[in-house]
Amino acid sequence: MPVLVMGETLLVTLQGELHDGTAEQLQQDISHRIAGSGANGVIIDISGVETVDSFLGRILAEIAASAGLLAARTVLVGMRPAVAITLVELGLTLPGLATALDIDRALELLARTSTPSAPDGHERAT
Amino acid sequence: MPVLVMGETLLVTLQGELHDGTAEQLQQDISHRIAGSGANGVIIDISGVETVDSFLGRILAEIAASAGLLAARTVLVGMRPAVAITLVELGLTLPGLATALDIDRALELLARTSTPSAPDGHERAT
Repeated sequence: MPVLVMGETLLVTLQGELHDGTAEQLQQDISHRIAGSGANGVIIDISGVETVDSFLGRILAEIAASAGLLAARTVLVGMRPAVAITLVELGLTLPGLATALDIDRALELLARTSTPSAPDGHERAT
Repeated sequence: MPVLVMGETLLVTLQGELHDGTAEQLQQDISHRIAGSGANGVIIDISGVETVDSFLGRILAEIAASAGLLAARTVLVGMRPAVAITLVELGLTLPGLATALDIDRALELLARTSTPSAPDGHERAT
């Protein structure tokens, strides 16, 4: 699972199924990349993901939590409508994970919430 | 149940009773419209709704949750005073759902919480 660095943001594209080992590896890769690059944002593109189950929901939440501890904010992009509905049905509303429709909006969101001049840093804490 | 697109906002007007099938269809319509239009807000007008039971409360919460996962905020407008009182009596305080008195105020609320220049992003995170 490639992790690209775009300036201060990491971009990860999930494709197909994520297995136990891959998920753990991905979480480690992302954490190391944040620490190495000083990234303050992680964008995870899940437009290639057709089904989200509780396993993937948990993985995403864990990636966001570890990124958060390294002071990077995680934004999910490209969620399909059917996936959103399934997540709600499963009761997985992904607290702590921000979402944006596409990468442009995710970058805007990250810029808005992480600039030093932001008068209010609350969101980061959520 | 028609879903209108007004710029970056969807407007849904609920009329009369909502049945299982209609509710599910509505949730799907809204989710697809958000993904298709890039809307960042959904206004649900319930001024035509005379009684709100726990079923409708749950549907509204689920619509708001799936819209939230797609990065759109849901605002309920036009709630009748009697409906508000019934909701409280039922213990349904609709967490995660913002309310506004009318559509104008809902648009203001959405503009305030979603523009890039918004000084405070709290509400988005709720």
